[in-house]
Amino acid sequence: MKNIAIIAKPHGDRVKPLIYELMGFLTSRGCTVLKDKRTAAVIAEPKFNSDEEIQQKADLVVVLGGDGTLISAVRILGDKETPILGINLGRLGFLTETVADDAVSALKDVLDGDYMVEHRMKLHSHLLQENEKVLEIDVLNDIVINKSDAARIFETTVYIDGMLVNEYRADGLIIATPTGSTAYSLAAGGPIVHPSLETMILTPICPQGLSNRPIVISDESEVTIKVNAAKEAVSITYDGQIFRKLDKWKTITVKKASTVTNLIVPKNKNYYSLLREKLGWGISQC
Amino acid sequence: MKNIAIIAKPHGDRVKPLIYELMGFLTSRGCTVLKDKRTAAVIAEPKFNSDEEIQQKADLVVVLGGDGTLISAVRILGDKETPILGINLGRLGFLTETVADDAVSALKDVLDGDYMVEHRMKLHSHLLQENEKVLEIDVLNDIVINKSDAARIFETTVYIDGMLVNEYRADGLIIATPTGSTAYSLAAGGPIVHPSLETMILTPICPQGLSNRPIVISDESEVTIKVNAAKEAVSITYDGQIFRKLDKWKTITVKKASTVTNLIVPKNKNYYSLLREKLGWGISQC
Amino acid sequence: MKNIAIIAKPHGDRVKPLIYELMGFLTSRGCTVLKDKRTAAVIAEPKFNSDEEIQQKADLVVVLGGDGTLISAVRILGDKETPILGINLGRLGFLTETVADDAVSALKDVLDGDYMVEHRMKLHSHLLQENEKVLEIDVLNDIVINKSDAARIFETTVYIDGMLVNEYRADGLIIATPTGSTAYSLAAGGPIVHPSLETMILTPICPQGLSNRPIVISDESEVTIKVNAAKEAVSITYDGQIFRKLDKWKTITVKKASTVTNLIVPKNKNYYSLLREKLGWGISQC
Amino acid sequence: MKNIAIIAKPHGDRVKPLIYELMGFLTSRGCTVLKDKRTAAVIAEPKFNSDEEIQQKADLVVVLGGDGTLISAVRILGDKETPILGINLGRLGFLTETVADDAVSALKDVLDGDYMVEHRMKLHSHLLQENEKVLEIDVLNDIVINKSDAARIFETTVYIDGMLVNEYRADGLIIATPTGSTAYSLAAGGPIVHPSLETMILTPICPQGLSNRPIVISDESEVTIKVNAAKEAVSITYDGQIFRKLDKWKTITVKKASTVTNLIVPKNKNYYSLLREKLGWGISQC
Repeated sequence: MKNIAIIAKPHGDRVKPLIYELMGFLTSRGCTVLKDKRTAAVIAEPKFNSDEEIQQKADLVVVLGGDGTLISAVRILGDKETPILGINLGRLGFLTETVADDAVSALKDVLDGDYMVEHRMKLHSHLLQENEKVLEIDVLNDIVINKSDAARIFETTVYIDGMLVNEYRADGLIIATPTGSTAYSLAAGGPIVHPSLETMILTPICPQGLSNRPIVISDESEVTIKVNAAKEAVSITYDGQIFRKLDKWKTITVKKASTVTNLIVPKNKNYYSLLREKLGWGISQC
Repeated sequence: MKNIAIIAKPHGDRVKPLIYELMGFLTSRGCTVLKDKRTAAVIAEPKFNSDEEIQQKADLVVVLGGDGTLISAVRILGDKETPILGINLGRLGFLTETVADDAVSALKDVLDGDYMVEHRMKLHSHLLQENEKVLEIDVLNDIVINKSDAARIFETTVYIDGMLVNEYRADGLIIATPTGSTAYSLAAGGPIVHPSLETMILTPICPQGLSNRPIVISDESEVTIKVNAAKEAVSITYDGQIFRKLDKWKTITVKKASTVTNLIVPKNKNYYSLLREKLGWGISQC
Repeated sequence: MKNIAIIAKPHGDRVKPLIYELMGFLTSRGCTVLKDKRTAAVIAEPKFNSDEEIQQKADLVVVLGGDGTLISAVRILGDKETPILGINLGRLGFLTETVADDAVSALKDVLDGDYMVEHRMKLHSHLLQENEKVLEIDVLNDIVINKSDAARIFETTVYIDGMLVNEYRADGLIIATPTGSTAYSLAAGGPIVHPSLETMILTPICPQGLSNRPIVISDESEVTIKVNAAKEAVSITYDGQIFRKLDKWKTITVKKASTVTNLIVPKNKNYYSLLREKLGWGISQC
Repeated sequence: MKNIAIIAKPHGDRVKPLIYELMGFLTSRGCTVLKDKRTAAVIAEPKFNSDEEIQQKADLVVVLGGDGTLISAVRILGDKETPILGINLGRLGFLTETVADDAVSALKDVLDGDYMVEHRMKLHSHLLQENEKVLEIDVLNDIVINKSDAARIFETTVYIDGMLVNEYRADGLIIATPTGSTAYSLAAGGPIVHPSLETMILTPICPQGLSNRPIVISDESEVTIKVNAAKEAVSITYDGQIFRKLDKWKTITVKKASTVTNLIVPKNKNYYSLLREKLGWGISQC
């Protein structure tokens, strides 16, 4: 690993010194450091690397921030499966498990080849207008189709592998990966799905049909969502970061992406311990 | 009862003949029929009564349509407690229990004084901007504060009687009456509250805190909702019908309204039988 | 207040010294201290007061322990509305909010007449066998009817004020007070109901009908539960403490009790702050 | 397919004529009909086949009844992967999709080799006492560990692949297959998992920790459940049919079974259409 990209969140006291610390360490190891525009701005350096350069050249991406920053890094990498090391600068993240104090030692281990990688499934989605593809995006967490905020409800017809699943009347619909199962889908009532699994989770948001429960389906399936005519436009959000308004009669298809995200995780990684800490398990509340 | 207003939904095959039938019956009973603009349009009559006239003069309002049409009639009546008879033209409604075939006989009973009224609590809400009231609205079902559709989340701080309840991070927040407990609040996980009760129900929508469960509070309480600074504007919806975008730092207060909605209900009314039918109880699904 | 009963939980290091401390303080104030059998046993004192004596003579009951111990004290008091001061010896309780370190000062305030009391509604239940009452019990939290552990399911028909509500196929059924809404009912999906309200909450446990949601009803209603014929006996549990096996074809009726529990609460009592602490609100989990 | 076993539920008007009809048809096709004891009793025939004979000889099992009867047939087959055709005699079942009227024609298709089989994953469980295996059972739906009915709660510590998951305080714990996801697990809040998937679902029943949500894990994992000391014995139920009381300190391990259940399904099988019908989807309830 020679070219190491640093992608940091733009705000917070702890980011700047940590960028310098990691740059110093990486230089001492003979690595070349790449920085995206926002990271360069944090240390007031005019030179930065374009997203394309990072995508093409980086052998490793170090993320400084929370899960949101890591998701941005996934977006920059596109189809590349470059491993990502997530360092959280505050609250423990589902994707950023290494604490800032351990950043250098974790990075050292990675450079020494002493690390563990989890392959995380992504979803690939097409947005179709009159059968023409207008937008193609891969996500690590979820795709969310939502009613307009002015509307009480939206209606959508969902097919899996060409078979009608249901006509949902709901606030929206989430299609999540196992990685995304502990994000928005969980808040909407979805199950926790171990991130090593390859499945898709279909979670309706506040459905008017009270038995419209979340469904876990095969990663070999293709989900087609037809948004029914609505007075108000509906919207689609990718990984909570990319947002589009949809006009009437749009169709969205979702299937497993052909590439994965390679997440570097602590060597003693224990997913259940992460769940216990993040979800506050072990306390009797009632 | 002399002046009878008819408020009908504007679409559907069955509306027009039913309006004529009720007008004929009411005229034969010596009543004066009032019609709002949309109802007059259904029968292509150029003369109609303004909402103010209906509010001031009507001794009874007959609603032809679903729960949504009845909610509109409640809005037209404002502070007036004029009794409302709801005739559904299709699916049984929580508020419109009389079927079209029984419309004349139900109306006859009402004119003969042989009817049962339920007093339904409403909520009174203020929208404040820099402590100045900018909007005052009463609702029969619910007030919903919602994130903008482009946003992942919104944050709101809720106080009851001046005491901090919680800082919610969620898709939104519903404050419902018992009548509204079987509407949106139910889809968001709220309890069914018997409509004879006088309480408020606070139901967070997809909260990030998994223990942020719905709360039923006293009708003597006052709820204050402060919308925290957000990049995106949030919105407020009254009874699913009136929609406003909120700028930053708005405050909403909600308490019991000083007037009620008087709903005429079938004499053999059985709320639980209505629940069973509407919610499809009695079937084992798993 | 002259006769003060102490009812303590039988185990734990902190109980014994606290009993002595409170006895010392009460004696210095010229009060007579009553102790139930288990409390006397903790300090190895052979003399104790019968439950009847405590019920008849006590002007105040001081509970040392958790919510379970306080519930036992409520049982001992029966129809008496003697005020109860709950001191928790470990985890904050919904009913035992005062910490051990504040026990003497809280007790001093009560003796000085400087205290706040909350009236908590109780439920009164009859167990009928062939229309003959075989058991009458009042509860502060809840009455739970449960399938036998060997059975997959039990069936029960519920009536409210003589009207059929539903035939439930479920693991069981909870009828809770507002006080009990944060106990078992909450774990089964019930709403939080402010303890100042007077309502009953009907919460089915794991119902096979997915729309069989919890219902909040009037405190003036009477609930009748008919347990349908079952191969296996079902059981009934009162406040989680009194347990009975039911034979076939038993009927249970539940209505508001004629007496209340008077709970002494901290003068700066804030129910929502208690909820936040007990339920771990304020943390984003997903 | 030469030896065809019929396993019928013992009660109901429609069973007897259907057994005769199928026996007639099978004999006309030159097949030998096997019958278990209960099925023979239905037609008052003294001769029957032992479960061992059915297990050893049957090339096909035809089940007449509901999902419960089919589960019994799975139990009789043990490790044998003999295909099963489920004919429901009343309500559509998740496992018994063919209606009685189509029984002969469905059976004809199977004998003609014109049929579709779904391989359904089973779970294999060990019950250990002081590290000695005392009971080994395979299930198609679920394994349920439950508090005793006299107890308010039970505590259990769960490990997956040796890693601590959580100490649950709950009414019980369900470990379900995808096939079992639409049975008890669904009533307890679990997700629907497509039956073609190979995963395990861990669903706590009424947990006191409100964030203790269902988890979907890999079929390659091994779940170990240690029941903590309890005053009251807990119990374990296999597929809702086999029940055991557990003494203190028992351990249960669960992993994927080495054999599957081969379920013959309609050729035009559509799982989502089955879900829609069984769960009553497509109706707006609020």
